[in-house]
Amino acid sequence: MVRASVTTQVLLAGAASAALFPDCQNGPLSNNTVCDPTASVTERAQAFVAALTNEEKFNLTGSTSPGVPRLGVPSYIWWNEALHGVASSPGVDFADEGDYSYATSFPQPIVMGAAFDDALINAVATVVSTEARAFNNANRSGLDFWTPNINPYKDPRWGRGQETPGEDTYHLRSYVAALIDGLQGGKNPEYLKVVATCKHFVAYDMENWHGVQRYEFDAQVTPQDLSEYYMQPFQTCARDAGVASIMCSYNALNGLPTCLDPYILQDVLRDHWNWTAPENYVTTDCDSLQSAFGYQHYADTRAQTVADALIAGTELNCGTYYQRHLGEAFTQGLFEQSDIDQAVVKLYSALIRLGYFDSASSVPYRSLGFGDVATPESGALALKAAEEGIVLLKNDGTLPLSLPSGRNTTFAFIGNWANATEEMQGNYAGVAPYLNSPLQAAQKIAGIDTIYGGGGGDPTTDGWDDAYDAAAAADIVIYADGASGDESGDRNTIHWTGGKIDLVSWIAELGKPMIVLSMGDQLDSSPFLSNPNISAIMWGGYPGQDGGTALMNIILGKVAPAGRLPVTQYPGNYINEIGMLDMNLRPNETSGNPGRTYKWYDNATIPFGYGLHYTNFTASFTASGNGSASSYDISELVSSCDNATYSYVDLCPFADAVQVDVSNDGDVASDFVTMLFITGQYGPQPYPLKQLVAYQRLFNVAGGQSQTANLNLTLGSLARYDDMGNAVLYPGEYSLLVDVPTQATYNFTLTGQETVIDHWPQPKNR
Amino acid sequence: MVRASVTTQVLLAGAASAALFPDCQNGPLSNNTVCDPTASVTERAQAFVAALTNEEKFNLTGSTSPGVPRLGVPSYIWWNEALHGVASSPGVDFADEGDYSYATSFPQPIVMGAAFDDALINAVATVVSTEARAFNNANRSGLDFWTPNINPYKDPRWGRGQETPGEDTYHLRSYVAALIDGLQGGKNPEYLKVVATCKHFVAYDMENWHGVQRYEFDAQVTPQDLSEYYMQPFQTCARDAGVASIMCSYNALNGLPTCLDPYILQDVLRDHWNWTAPENYVTTDCDSLQSAFGYQHYADTRAQTVADALIAGTELNCGTYYQRHLGEAFTQGLFEQSDIDQAVVKLYSALIRLGYFDSASSVPYRSLGFGDVATPESGALALKAAEEGIVLLKNDGTLPLSLPSGRNTTFAFIGNWANATEEMQGNYAGVAPYLNSPLQAAQKIAGIDTIYGGGGGDPTTDGWDDAYDAAAAADIVIYADGASGDESGDRNTIHWTGGKIDLVSWIAELGKPMIVLSMGDQLDSSPFLSNPNISAIMWGGYPGQDGGTALMNIILGKVAPAGRLPVTQYPGNYINEIGMLDMNLRPNETSGNPGRTYKWYDNATIPFGYGLHYTNFTASFTASGNGSASSYDISELVSSCDNATYSYVDLCPFADAVQVDVSNDGDVASDFVTMLFITGQYGPQPYPLKQLVAYQRLFNVAGGQSQTANLNLTLGSLARYDDMGNAVLYPGEYSLLVDVPTQATYNFTLTGQETVIDHWPQPKNR
Repeated sequence: MVRASVTTQVLLAGAASAALFPDCQNGPLSNNTVCDPTASVTERAQAFVAALTNEEKFNLTGSTSPGVPRLGVPSYIWWNEALHGVASSPGVDFADEGDYSYATSFPQPIVMGAAFDDALINAVATVVSTEARAFNNANRSGLDFWTPNINPYKDPRWGRGQETPGEDTYHLRSYVAALIDGLQGGKNPEYLKVVATCKHFVAYDMENWHGVQRYEFDAQVTPQDLSEYYMQPFQTCARDAGVASIMCSYNALNGLPTCLDPYILQDVLRDHWNWTAPENYVTTDCDSLQSAFGYQHYADTRAQTVADALIAGTELNCGTYYQRHLGEAFTQGLFEQSDIDQAVVKLYSALIRLGYFDSASSVPYRSLGFGDVATPESGALALKAAEEGIVLLKNDGTLPLSLPSGRNTTFAFIGNWANATEEMQGNYAGVAPYLNSPLQAAQKIAGIDTIYGGGGGDPTTDGWDDAYDAAAAADIVIYADGASGDESGDRNTIHWTGGKIDLVSWIAELGKPMIVLSMGDQLDSSPFLSNPNISAIMWGGYPGQDGGTALMNIILGKVAPAGRLPVTQYPGNYINEIGMLDMNLRPNETSGNPGRTYKWYDNATIPFGYGLHYTNFTASFTASGNGSASSYDISELVSSCDNATYSYVDLCPFADAVQVDVSNDGDVASDFVTMLFITGQYGPQPYPLKQLVAYQRLFNVAGGQSQTANLNLTLGSLARYDDMGNAVLYPGEYSLLVDVPTQATYNFTLTGQETVIDHWPQPKNR
Repeated sequence: MVRASVTTQVLLAGAASAALFPDCQNGPLSNNTVCDPTASVTERAQAFVAALTNEEKFNLTGSTSPGVPRLGVPSYIWWNEALHGVASSPGVDFADEGDYSYATSFPQPIVMGAAFDDALINAVATVVSTEARAFNNANRSGLDFWTPNINPYKDPRWGRGQETPGEDTYHLRSYVAALIDGLQGGKNPEYLKVVATCKHFVAYDMENWHGVQRYEFDAQVTPQDLSEYYMQPFQTCARDAGVASIMCSYNALNGLPTCLDPYILQDVLRDHWNWTAPENYVTTDCDSLQSAFGYQHYADTRAQTVADALIAGTELNCGTYYQRHLGEAFTQGLFEQSDIDQAVVKLYSALIRLGYFDSASSVPYRSLGFGDVATPESGALALKAAEEGIVLLKNDGTLPLSLPSGRNTTFAFIGNWANATEEMQGNYAGVAPYLNSPLQAAQKIAGIDTIYGGGGGDPTTDGWDDAYDAAAAADIVIYADGASGDESGDRNTIHWTGGKIDLVSWIAELGKPMIVLSMGDQLDSSPFLSNPNISAIMWGGYPGQDGGTALMNIILGKVAPAGRLPVTQYPGNYINEIGMLDMNLRPNETSGNPGRTYKWYDNATIPFGYGLHYTNFTASFTASGNGSASSYDISELVSSCDNATYSYVDLCPFADAVQVDVSNDGDVASDFVTMLFITGQYGPQPYPLKQLVAYQRLFNVAGGQSQTANLNLTLGSLARYDDMGNAVLYPGEYSLLVDVPTQATYNFTLTGQETVIDHWPQPKNR
């Protein structure tokens, strides 16, 4: 969505001056069942809706809701953001100074994804929801947050890839389950801490590609890719993690704008995934109803557009189309009374589940205040998240630096990110309590002198002399630069520019220890990998409020790096081999598609899952691991699944946990991310190169010591997807691979008949 | 070039604190011949250069020159801009307030081009050079101005098309000759008023197309298109108009970066066009030497790159590559002593021609001051330029508005340009003395009440309610919006967005008189042309400091519109039919190229040269016009050319002036632009649809009256270009066409043998 201030006719006074909650004690609704906490959520919501006129209902379906002044229901802004901390957005009101003028700003999801540490994600999300509740208690935010962005980052050009944890579906699913638990206050809690919203449903991963805007893009996706890839994170959100809300996207999917599509909103989301809790509502992306009409030209009139969306199962409209046009649509008989009633019932059910109509004493989060915001502990967690996510990509032994004692060491800092502050937050950020750039972090370290050489111009040489002279005068050269995607458009290039390569190679000729900090999104590192004058490369991404400290801590060896790339680093020319609008993941000789993601593409500059350490690790399968069987019968695997515990067969455990022994063969203590992939020639061709099925981050493995990772597989880990999108177990030879590059392999066999473990719903004829 | 502040090692104190001119009375150079005004320009410059060390010479070749402190020669910034008024740029220093805090800001060239009034252009350029001299006298600018941008605007996507007068070569040539005369103070004046610089030489007309940057683009151009189209304005600049300086471009041409290409810099520019005045120097675009190395990878080393540029004939380097690397190149023996000496001689010859070493009393412009800047007269000229350039594209009779007397009329102003201020200036602008938006202009008019409805969101409906409600409450609706190209990239689309079309059509359903002001660059007007609820469309472009007043004056009929489109308005899908990087102008069935410009493409939404009036004009050939002959012998035409008067055969007059009678058949007095095109099936196929050969703006033709336009043709008007790029007279049937659409035709015949009238130099084998 576009972040913009919302001003509409129906917007009443600003949030700060309006009442925060309806007055259920003395207000007009005090005798309405909505104020009775002993009634069921749905009964309460239905009683509320029964008290409304249709005009009032229509007004309640917009993201800037006027409430119902007649009934003492205050205005409410549904649009709040919290991608990596409470974030600036229409519903969030940071104070100009003092209390509530800032909130913890964690690294971007792409960096937190690189940590491969679900417990970290849960801890971060818990801080975010705590701070969100504190802001809400101060009447400075709503309780519905339109986060996470969980579309898989399948193309390196995508402008919003930074908002996601990466390209892999298993990783995304594991990450988002931990995140939602932290945001919503556990699985099916008594009160929702906040409402999380998985977005953008579905097959949304482009912004503006050469003039084709997300508003007008019609994604052509096969059932196989849809079920296997694009839908996977949403399945976890809706079916397994209990997310309260889902946002439909701007794009069309196979011809229909998603917010108007009963196949994905009803057949898949509600029927197949049983996403039917009272609080489960769908919101549009911001003005995706306007775009369905004005860009996609889906319906002939604005009235028909809003009616189709409402009937398809879209309860809330970010924007004004519902508020402006539902009335005329109803007059024209384009939808039923029950359609609008049900939508408002769902929306208010969500508020009821947040304790919106309940007393402060009964809602456990109502006592949170600014003392719970941006605490020292949350600051330490933000630093830890950055340290865990930074990835070491090249090291000729220069890192970690050992500085001489007895004299200061001079660092030159050069590049557009050398003194980056807000850039380190990435998009969908709030106001951070502080922002430590790499330069600023270094300036705080005893024994280090710094020279700031400026950004180093590009494409002009404006500033090159400053950069060169700074490097010439220093002992150590840090070049921090990169490229950011953003929401205004997708990236046209994924290579370092000719100007930056020229500047860096010129400076590198000085022969100083030179460390490149590759910031922002991935750029093809080839020219720096192959340049012997460049000592080390680290990918820092968007490391958040204390990112500079995290980078310096790793550079100086206070922290050992253990992050892994959560995306493929493609060669610069990759984007010339596949169209941005080609949604197919599998390689295709006819179209020239070389394949997408590590699963289908194997010519990466640096592969998914790669990351160096300050020590050497050996990973091997534990001799006693995985039980004794090396062959499994499919029917036995399925029939032994305990349906009472596991509602879905793909979630049933497969055999025992796989145990991987990880030994640190060097002398630097370090975390290690144990990654387990599956591969084999089974199921439909083409066969993927491999698929991540489990990961576990081990902490602080001391030199000469070892730890064991316990990696849980499920039947879903073994499944592949047929051309209808069904998840299927196939007989065949399977291999488990540990680490990137692979350090050890474990083989087993599945026997018997191929068996569908998830029947994918098929779209009806259109 | 990129506008950015320049900070380099060699930059001394800011201009304001440095001396403005060398002290030829008492300074170290007082006895050097450079200070002797009786010596020739070249002798003076050579004497100066003879006093320099090589290191000093190298330092003088950068755009931010340190001067020669040892000799009392002050630092000098060569990079000054004045595209449509003295403009913010490294060498121009606007004061924060008071005197010299502003300068007249004329409309962008694309708007002034639409006036088709060369006298206007000369008057504007005279004001600009006067204001530039005043700024220089106050030590607030240099005397070398890197204007005009005279690349033909051949593709509607080009981000910098607004900087040019349009797409047609005859128009560009006529315009730029008038402009250079005004900037430089006449043809071959005693002192140059300022140095004008025709840029970007050559075949430069893209910025960043889908990741292909101008720094790395290699334009593939045929000799035919090169000579006939891309070179034409530069031929006028260098050969005919006496421009002092030329800027080579970023792009390569047929494999060689232009700043390193002896074919275009020596064979064409100096040898074929006799561009050999002492002051004639070539500057690079900003850091095009870096881009030749770092992006084009033309040479193996930086030293070889600068040596090749110097030898090719590039005297000045915007950037630092010459300053940083000429020394090492010289040490390596990559160029001769005479190469660097000649470059500095030319640069200082230009300064000598500006009176840089002469006494204030001898230079006529040295007494200009702030009293000569932004005068009432120049303000009136800026308003007139806008009024003359605005083009009426649709009118159902609503315009001019006749407002009721006795009560006020309420205007709603909606759209992103409704209250545009700096946007009206376009790029390469300075600080204007005032900026009157359409809204602000209306607010100053008695009898008009205004409601500002905001921009009207796009792509979100954010703000649509405000826009709609404003329109609903008004008598008249003005929607002012559009799209701007810019230097950061070329336009991806040339159509109105789905959101804007939706908003406008929704508001138009109110049935109010509704006027669309299409601002910025051309957008396909089709949806507004075909919508009967939209009363009128005017193209306002970038109308400058008083653009809102100009628009309101036309809307209210105080001024009658007579501008003509200086570019084709293409259908939105045109850009999908031809690649941005395809330099070919002629249609090509194999490549799918539908042809470029009105000369080769005939499916325009609105054609080049189109423009409505508030009255009806009839244009016809005067019976006595064009002499009596309707057949001409080619050899006779050529042999009768007076070589003493006309150095080049293509400039020789053809027959007598063509006389066109223009009668105003209505009752509103109005200007009328008489346009004359030539067409016929002669010369090489394919044949162009037509070619502009003359124009004349007639002023204030009263209702019921007529005026006569005298249109001068030359032998060049009849020429076509063969596949070697030679200009040739061919026997055949010719037709002259008046007006767009054509109102009258005059036919004549050329007989005899085809004859080359300009032998185009061929590139040597590479």
